[in-house]
Amino acid sequence: MTRSYTVGIVGATGIAGQQFVIALQGHPWFSIERLAASERSAGRPFGQALLDPKTGARRWWCQEEPAAKVLSIPVENGDAFDPEGLDVVFSATESDVAQVQEPRFAKTTAVVSTASAFRYEADVPLLVPNVNMDHAELIHRQRKNRGWKGFVVPIPNCTVTGLVITLKPLADAFGLRSAIVTAMNGLSGAGRSPGVMGLDILDNIIPFIPKEEEKVQTECRKILPQHPAEISATCTRVNVMEGHTESVFAALGRRASVDEVKHAFRSVRNEARELGLPTAPAEWIKVHDNPFRPQPRLDRDNGGGMTTTVGRVREDNVLPNGMKYLLVSHNTRMGAAAGAVLVAEYLAVKGYLHS
Amino acid sequence: MTRSYTVGIVGATGIAGQQFVIALQGHPWFSIERLAASERSAGRPFGQALLDPKTGARRWWCQEEPAAKVLSIPVENGDAFDPEGLDVVFSATESDVAQVQEPRFAKTTAVVSTASAFRYEADVPLLVPNVNMDHAELIHRQRKNRGWKGFVVPIPNCTVTGLVITLKPLADAFGLRSAIVTAMNGLSGAGRSPGVMGLDILDNIIPFIPKEEEKVQTECRKILPQHPAEISATCTRVNVMEGHTESVFAALGRRASVDEVKHAFRSVRNEARELGLPTAPAEWIKVHDNPFRPQPRLDRDNGGGMTTTVGRVREDNVLPNGMKYLLVSHNTRMGAAAGAVLVAEYLAVKGYLHS
Amino acid sequence: MTRSYTVGIVGATGIAGQQFVIALQGHPWFSIERLAASERSAGRPFGQALLDPKTGARRWWCQEEPAAKVLSIPVENGDAFDPEGLDVVFSATESDVAQVQEPRFAKTTAVVSTASAFRYEADVPLLVPNVNMDHAELIHRQRKNRGWKGFVVPIPNCTVTGLVITLKPLADAFGLRSAIVTAMNGLSGAGRSPGVMGLDILDNIIPFIPKEEEKVQTECRKILPQHPAEISATCTRVNVMEGHTESVFAALGRRASVDEVKHAFRSVRNEARELGLPTAPAEWIKVHDNPFRPQPRLDRDNGGGMTTTVGRVREDNVLPNGMKYLLVSHNTRMGAAAGAVLVAEYLAVKGYLHS
Amino acid sequence: MTRSYTVGIVGATGIAGQQFVIALQGHPWFSIERLAASERSAGRPFGQALLDPKTGARRWWCQEEPAAKVLSIPVENGDAFDPEGLDVVFSATESDVAQVQEPRFAKTTAVVSTASAFRYEADVPLLVPNVNMDHAELIHRQRKNRGWKGFVVPIPNCTVTGLVITLKPLADAFGLRSAIVTAMNGLSGAGRSPGVMGLDILDNIIPFIPKEEEKVQTECRKILPQHPAEISATCTRVNVMEGHTESVFAALGRRASVDEVKHAFRSVRNEARELGLPTAPAEWIKVHDNPFRPQPRLDRDNGGGMTTTVGRVREDNVLPNGMKYLLVSHNTRMGAAAGAVLVAEYLAVKGYLHS
Repeated sequence: MTRSYTVGIVGATGIAGQQFVIALQGHPWFSIERLAASERSAGRPFGQALLDPKTGARRWWCQEEPAAKVLSIPVENGDAFDPEGLDVVFSATESDVAQVQEPRFAKTTAVVSTASAFRYEADVPLLVPNVNMDHAELIHRQRKNRGWKGFVVPIPNCTVTGLVITLKPLADAFGLRSAIVTAMNGLSGAGRSPGVMGLDILDNIIPFIPKEEEKVQTECRKILPQHPAEISATCTRVNVMEGHTESVFAALGRRASVDEVKHAFRSVRNEARELGLPTAPAEWIKVHDNPFRPQPRLDRDNGGGMTTTVGRVREDNVLPNGMKYLLVSHNTRMGAAAGAVLVAEYLAVKGYLHS
Repeated sequence: MTRSYTVGIVGATGIAGQQFVIALQGHPWFSIERLAASERSAGRPFGQALLDPKTGARRWWCQEEPAAKVLSIPVENGDAFDPEGLDVVFSATESDVAQVQEPRFAKTTAVVSTASAFRYEADVPLLVPNVNMDHAELIHRQRKNRGWKGFVVPIPNCTVTGLVITLKPLADAFGLRSAIVTAMNGLSGAGRSPGVMGLDILDNIIPFIPKEEEKVQTECRKILPQHPAEISATCTRVNVMEGHTESVFAALGRRASVDEVKHAFRSVRNEARELGLPTAPAEWIKVHDNPFRPQPRLDRDNGGGMTTTVGRVREDNVLPNGMKYLLVSHNTRMGAAAGAVLVAEYLAVKGYLHS
Repeated sequence: MTRSYTVGIVGATGIAGQQFVIALQGHPWFSIERLAASERSAGRPFGQALLDPKTGARRWWCQEEPAAKVLSIPVENGDAFDPEGLDVVFSATESDVAQVQEPRFAKTTAVVSTASAFRYEADVPLLVPNVNMDHAELIHRQRKNRGWKGFVVPIPNCTVTGLVITLKPLADAFGLRSAIVTAMNGLSGAGRSPGVMGLDILDNIIPFIPKEEEKVQTECRKILPQHPAEISATCTRVNVMEGHTESVFAALGRRASVDEVKHAFRSVRNEARELGLPTAPAEWIKVHDNPFRPQPRLDRDNGGGMTTTVGRVREDNVLPNGMKYLLVSHNTRMGAAAGAVLVAEYLAVKGYLHS
Repeated sequence: MTRSYTVGIVGATGIAGQQFVIALQGHPWFSIERLAASERSAGRPFGQALLDPKTGARRWWCQEEPAAKVLSIPVENGDAFDPEGLDVVFSATESDVAQVQEPRFAKTTAVVSTASAFRYEADVPLLVPNVNMDHAELIHRQRKNRGWKGFVVPIPNCTVTGLVITLKPLADAFGLRSAIVTAMNGLSGAGRSPGVMGLDILDNIIPFIPKEEEKVQTECRKILPQHPAEISATCTRVNVMEGHTESVFAALGRRASVDEVKHAFRSVRNEARELGLPTAPAEWIKVHDNPFRPQPRLDRDNGGGMTTTVGRVREDNVLPNGMKYLLVSHNTRMGAAAGAVLVAEYLAVKGYLHS
């Protein structure tokens, strides 16, 4: 079966929007038809809207280059953007903008979003592939509640993604009581406005990321509701370009050996791949036995940035049935745009997109 | 009362030995009289022994320069070094060398060491100022057991120092059941043979430091024996020059508020300062209310690198009576040579050094 | 003779202004009496004006802390600031602000500035201690031309400072025809608005600093007019916190040996020190024979950041009478506020400040 | 025409040898048949020889993984290695080893080498594709002189590669009198034994790379003999993983405009591509008009690391007919193994390999 969906990207000139462009251009199912951004960028082709007015240089921050076809799409004003006719809108705006725009888009159209605006609403599922895609059923309630033909589905905060991906197989196999996590997050997670200054992070660690720990604690509970686990997080910023490295201590529901835990990681079901989703990696969780791994620079790109990589699985002697490990997750691939595209692919095969 | 002690440094050409030179030159009580290193360096003045045979450049790795007087001291062969006549030997060799040399030195002389060789012996105290200096009494037993006129007193691993300094006031005020720590350690802790390659740490984190976690767990228990706390550690290496940053989650003996915990830190008794020890900082633990602190680059040099700095004190929702915080400790000042000198100062005023 | 001058700092809350606070608090001659900044900061004590409105954290970017006395000084609005009664105003604003404010201040008061606004005016000397302090005589012409009781004296761009300090003794001893320089500049030179993002500089070099090369080329010629040397510069940004490292190739007026060139550097006259200027370092130019020096991290703080450090002096085989070397200069000490204070000290002893 | 050659890699376990493995596995013409290394590694399959004896971790430093087929090849002792039967030996040993081994291999077999041992011999061409491949004719003289059936062809030092690639079109179009270059070299150029310590390069620049400047100056002249240009180099090490960034000032034979120079770069003949060499990039020299480029992190991988990227082309006011620019060249792709493979491809189509 050949699938074909028309999509728009809102917030397309920002760093998250550009990542959507990269994740979607050349996609076998999704075709970028329209782009929107702030009023300032509207009315010009995407390629021109990207130019720095001072220097004339293209403000483009992804490794891969945007396709010529995308550069020629005229940018529309997001505040006036009418998505009717599109199958999906990918929303990459700041949360306050999303708060206003996304409900308007959802009246007619499916919205998959990296913004946090609707993550905590009771009728909004917070979806992570292979973890809680059954929560997608909430979409029916959401439509009914709100009288929408479309819907809003956000993905979680990028620090949450790798954490729930690794906690889920533990919860399924052994039960999960609680987890303590210290996150060492890459610079790209802070974006560019304002982002992290080179002066501040060189030879340094920033021990605080505003609101991040609350998001981690709240979102994990929402994503793994059947496992009433408490999560306690400390989130720091380190001088790493991409990739969040997390040091996890988990209290399991029953005693398990290191080998059992590694086996649980390695045998996790990769439903996204089974369903033939184009963005799903062959290996959902990669487990290293080499104690010097995972390293963010060496492991963030595993599976095209879609694989979560785990290592240093050891017993913990403090928590009940304690087990500790480190993980690396690519915060701007699986943890952002590409992860949202994977969610959209899932929604497509499950019939949530009208096409 | 004017104090005056003659000291020698063994392993003087290495990075830890050089730090002893810096901590001791210009010291009001201790006078560097003799230096020893490996046979290769022996027989030449210190200044010449430091020269790289290939390039002729001085292999000196501290910010401060060695004094002319020290550069002129002839280096002796550590394997043949007889410390008789010295009041203290500061030992900065690798553990396997210390295993052989330190007992020989201790027959006649007090040895204060950064090596791990004797840390786990039952009659050897592992001393941290203001934390467990009462353990110094073990020295009497050690001398008796071993028939030594001198003794061996090691300081703990540098990741342990800041941890026990901050856990002690919590244990005293509230009791302490357990602690979980993720350490993000600076490069200088790895030394230079082999140390960490620039290629390996740029844009990266190394998730493993061989033997470090076992040391943290064992040494904390030995230093805080009256608080039967389990410690669980994950130790990583980050691209920071100096300073270990530790993310701590502690289970207290009773419920405490954030303000009580901050108060416990701020009101910790600074006995080292009360005793007039020259290397003791005015502030033993500095507590930040600013959530963006502590940062290793901004806080490692507090109190000349002798102050432990704490911040982000918050309640933890996973551990019983849980409290979490971050700390920064200077691993090559308080955590190494200067910390050992502070221990020696304490031993001096308490009469353990013959003078 | 005891000297005593009252000073004000304009642009005091910015990074350059903060460096003036550090360079001036505790100064034996200059006493900080007044502070000014933008209207936004005005009306509150300096300590409060520094607080981030969002987080409440103090926005302070120097290693040293501001003194309590300074923190209590009320911040005035620079646009309404009347310096009458002060002996010197230190101006640390952006160039467009300086363009308007500095002439107003100069009607009554001496202005020493890090801004570029007046650097290229014919009656404005661009002063570097020990290089061209005789240009200070232009102040008389400036006053006459403009009808000012005070004057404006800017210091040059921070990439220029180390370059002219090292070119001057070469020009004096051997003549100077031209110089080619590739500058590898530290992050602090870019400031914070916008400054350099961590994302952009990690594992990278930025090959362009807008307007910097033109400044280098123009300002060098103005500072060294008796040596009609052409300067050609390429200025890059590297991932170094502080310190500009410059690779210089110089065409001398006559053939000289490496030893002669080193001797010229080492025997440079340190008039600033001879005059007893408090901020002058004991060593004006430090020359390394060790080919692995100068390094910015190891050499930028020489002489409290006021010494220019040179190394790798070798013959160049392309330029006529060519000689090549590297230098390190501290861009935010000698190259900015502290350098401006040194100029002010010189002007004081030469009688240019009314006191 | 289908080409097929059997190849061996000597020095295969080192970092340069591993890069040959990556450049050759999956190559359409060359098939890795044999591997050699030091005696210590000999006698075991490659996959086992890579294991760290202490930790059991695989000592593999390339981003791409070695193929299973390669991992199973038994490693031979390079000192006893007889290449008879192979079409090419790729030599990646240290220079002192190459000095002994390469002449022995060349008795029977073509040797393409990254070692410097034979670079300066009169009958040995130092080959750079699209620059001086006509020098390959020297191979006939070499064979005759030395009585070899094979030959030795080294590639130049990695700092030379991008420099001569960009100087050649300038020399051809305008003539070239001389060039001054300041190189800011990536860490991977220093390898791992000893390489650059993280401690030494963080927040720093190392101003000296032993022997590098002499190599640059000598090798450029050998590669571009028809242009009797003097080259003067200063080579530094910066905290960049891969990619050498070079600031070049060139004296041309006649006056040229910036546009003419850009045109010369852009219109350079890409003979390697015309000949269908598999490793040749589509774009030989990429020229940026954006003044913020080239940047090593963004441009080193252009053309799979085989394209040399140039930017900031401007007039220089010091050198006669002066022009200045920056370039980025990938030191471990085009500048090392992949560049050597490209040379071997050229030699293959020109009939220098027996097959």
